Amino acid sequence: RTSSRCSFLPNSSLQFGAGARKLHAEGNGPKSSPAAAPDRLPFSRVTQEDLAFFKKILPGRTITDPDLLESSNVDWLKSVKGSSEVMLRPQTTEDVSQILSYCNSRNLAVNPQGGNTGLTGGSVPVYDEIILSTALMNKILAFDSISGILTCQAGCVLENLSLYLEKRDHIMPLDLGAKGSCQIGGNVATNAGGLRLLRYGSLHGTVLGLEVVLADGRVLDCLTTLRKDNTGYDLKQLFIGSEGTLGVITAVSILCPRRPTSVNVVFLGCETFEQLLKTFQLCRGMLGEILSAFEFLDSECMRLLNTHLRLPNPISDCPFYVVIETSGSDPSHDGEKLHNFLEEAMACSLVNDGTVATEETKIKALWSMRERVTEALTHDGFTYKYDISLPVERIYQLVTDMRERLGDRAKSVVGYGHIGDGNLHLNITSPAKDPALLAAIEPFVYEWTASCQGSISAEHGLGLKKRNYIYYSKNPQTVALMGNIKAMLDPKGILNPYKTLPDNLK
Amino acid sequence: RTSSRCSFLPNSSLQFGAGARKLHAEGNGPKSSPAAAPDRLPFSRVTQEDLAFFKKILPGRTITDPDLLESSNVDWLKSVKGSSEVMLRPQTTEDVSQILSYCNSRNLAVNPQGGNTGLTGGSVPVYDEIILSTALMNKILAFDSISGILTCQAGCVLENLSLYLEKRDHIMPLDLGAKGSCQIGGNVATNAGGLRLLRYGSLHGTVLGLEVVLADGRVLDCLTTLRKDNTGYDLKQLFIGSEGTLGVITAVSILCPRRPTSVNVVFLGCETFEQLLKTFQLCRGMLGEILSAFEFLDSECMRLLNTHLRLPNPISDCPFYVVIETSGSDPSHDGEKLHNFLEEAMACSLVNDGTVATEETKIKALWSMRERVTEALTHDGFTYKYDISLPVERIYQLVTDMRERLGDRAKSVVGYGHIGDGNLHLNITSPAKDPALLAAIEPFVYEWTASCQGSISAEHGLGLKKRNYIYYSKNPQTVALMGNIKAMLDPKGILNPYKTLPDNLK
Repeated sequence: RTSSRCSFLPNSSLQFGAGARKLHAEGNGPKSSPAAAPDRLPFSRVTQEDLAFFKKILPGRTITDPDLLESSNVDWLKSVKGSSEVMLRPQTTEDVSQILSYCNSRNLAVNPQGGNTGLTGGSVPVYDEIILSTALMNKILAFDSISGILTCQAGCVLENLSLYLEKRDHIMPLDLGAKGSCQIGGNVATNAGGLRLLRYGSLHGTVLGLEVVLADGRVLDCLTTLRKDNTGYDLKQLFIGSEGTLGVITAVSILCPRRPTSVNVVFLGCETFEQLLKTFQLCRGMLGEILSAFEFLDSECMRLLNTHLRLPNPISDCPFYVVIETSGSDPSHDGEKLHNFLEEAMACSLVNDGTVATEETKIKALWSMRERVTEALTHDGFTYKYDISLPVERIYQLVTDMRERLGDRAKSVVGYGHIGDGNLHLNITSPAKDPALLAAIEPFVYEWTASCQGSISAEHGLGLKKRNYIYYSKNPQTVALMGNIKAMLDPKGILNPYKTLPDNLK
Repeated sequence: RTSSRCSFLPNSSLQFGAGARKLHAEGNGPKSSPAAAPDRLPFSRVTQEDLAFFKKILPGRTITDPDLLESSNVDWLKSVKGSSEVMLRPQTTEDVSQILSYCNSRNLAVNPQGGNTGLTGGSVPVYDEIILSTALMNKILAFDSISGILTCQAGCVLENLSLYLEKRDHIMPLDLGAKGSCQIGGNVATNAGGLRLLRYGSLHGTVLGLEVVLADGRVLDCLTTLRKDNTGYDLKQLFIGSEGTLGVITAVSILCPRRPTSVNVVFLGCETFEQLLKTFQLCRGMLGEILSAFEFLDSECMRLLNTHLRLPNPISDCPFYVVIETSGSDPSHDGEKLHNFLEEAMACSLVNDGTVATEETKIKALWSMRERVTEALTHDGFTYKYDISLPVERIYQLVTDMRERLGDRAKSVVGYGHIGDGNLHLNITSPAKDPALLAAIEPFVYEWTASCQGSISAEHGLGLKKRNYIYYSKNPQTVALMGNIKAMLDPKGILNPYKTLPDNLK
């Protein structure tokens, strides 16, 4: 899973300095790294008159207490720290519209914030941007049990939506490790992927409607609840994955699948990555329509789970491990398909060992081997994180090449992720922040990815930290067109500045 | 299915006059109907110098023979006829780039054309626009059998892609009645829906990459073959469903599902529409992951199939008929699920009668009861066609209300379509074109749809004929933003003019 609950990890190796300018994970100073924050842009600063206006329209919901602001100024990885002095907590679309209309006219920068679980520094202010929190916009507006279409405000927490739907025999089409904190508006704004993408597809397909407030306060109502609507351009798509730089999403309608009545999880061990890929192929064929996840981790991940979290390996030691989930409507059919698949995988010597879970406690235990890798890594030292899309055949070669390249300069080099989606999470740890190590990793990792036409950010987005690496995955024509769209929708650039778009566009 | 093979129907009741200006189905003159063509815009006219240029870059592929141009000047419904005097047949993206760069500098209007199977007059010239045919851009560029990702040029015919994939154990994620003629580029440009949407979702989710040539000839290369890529705005989405007004799609990469090894089709009869909806609900629960289509037709459709095509009813007479398709990976499991569902549906008296097909000839015969309704309608008289999205509970009320409203002024009022997608095809026939009947249908049908927050074009697009009805489904803010995007990407408006955008934007 892509991130975990929103709370600080006690052993984070990052230190916060006094000023916000230098606080980003991989930078060595404001100018030295493409990940570093650029200079503050000439936005206005919040005045007493501004505060008076906000307090008038949001009585009790205009936060200026530094203690209350602290956690909203820092991201979950503690890698970016802003110095915002005001957080606004709108409850309605009209509130958001009034805020943005005012900020636009005053040239005040705004950082839209959901659950603040992002991993690329996109969800926190970089300087003194006003934080616009969607946390109080948490109403479920409608659910149609015939069509499975849910409509809700942007601030609904993903897990709350899941619980609401479960009682109504449906599930959300996405699931993330951060579900306890992340909000659906943030999920859509960052085009969150997660564990169910293999089965239910991306948010570009499942999100049916959006309500968005544009930079100048205009409300763009595309909140339809129809599976099909070909009346003109599908404008809502622009906002899915735009990381709050084009508008503030205030409401979402989304197509929810039926809740599966039968879920199985298998944990398998493979000798080689090639066998793992063959297992995936066999699986796609034999499990077909019930396959809902195909995830992997390597033996280095297992070592970290054992060492730092005391999670024992549920099977014998292997170089590669696979978590397969099936979801279906008939337990006996699903069991039989799984049995046939496992028999065939064993007969072809694709897997060395394995275990199956059908009851919830064991399912959760097996899933935690995959989900808690992120957590185990935080105990291993300072972590350099990469979230890469590659042609599935090439996925593990990057880990091997990186391991060879870094030798004993790195503490651990681990690979895990979503095989079914061609998505590798490459993580490299070292005892402390290490500029020389970073220089050995980057730009190598990006160049390697670009040489395979991969994506340097599969699901985490660009945020602050990766904005200047965009050219490794997008050509200049495309980036220029992104700039045109930004200029059209947010001419003053007040929405989430310093994020997503590279500095050279500004 | 949304449309049929591209050939003229012998008994079309439309007559073509001498000039193009008055040739549109529902107009009574250039100014009298919102569907009528607006005045020609001040584009340049093709000169001998222009032709010399085209012949130089496209030797043998610059068509000016009026006989060869005729079928490309008229749409499949024979409802719109243009008067283009030149058709260009590029083979490469570079060809398209050179054509558009030249046309843009010369202010020459261009009508991009795929298989010309559209139903709203979007695929043919309105006046003398140059026809840019993608027919020769028919190369399959790559197929990755591990990930199921197909990359091909825009002019590949859908059925050819399906045949190519079937041999490789995959299928296209969309299927249309027009598959023998329609092209993947046109499918994407019109965001085609069709029969598999219920299972595999819309093209916004399954299309992974696009290559598009912009109005000024710039090539926008978003042709990635990755399931996940969150590096900036997903610009390709803008072109999906833009009906050729924002750019010419030259290549597509698309995610293809595994070919199901087991397919069943059931044809059922229901006494009431309420029972039909309950059958759908039961079906979603009991067939779950193997449900791949849930289509319906009413008894009036059956009458037309019997009368005009001599297709006998495969079951006893009922007010409503349902076609259910299952696709799965295990014939015995699928058969058992289907059996259990049918037993339950009978036990609850949801269905009156039914028949099941598992072998291909009978499957095709049952499917033809649904697919050939469009064809049967063309034999019934002049047809007024509406393609409406509604909340699924309201779908049939519109047919009933229309039937009551029109009484014996209409020859037939029939409803059929995709229940699973909330998509109704409402068709009304009369012995000949009948302005009084049209006045009784419109704007009533649009107002009725708008009152339920439905879409006045679920899958057919707006094209020429429905462009001015856009406000029934989109608010002015959204339409204005569409106009901004059009102006940004095609400032001279040369791409598919008179289509999609309402006249009052220009």
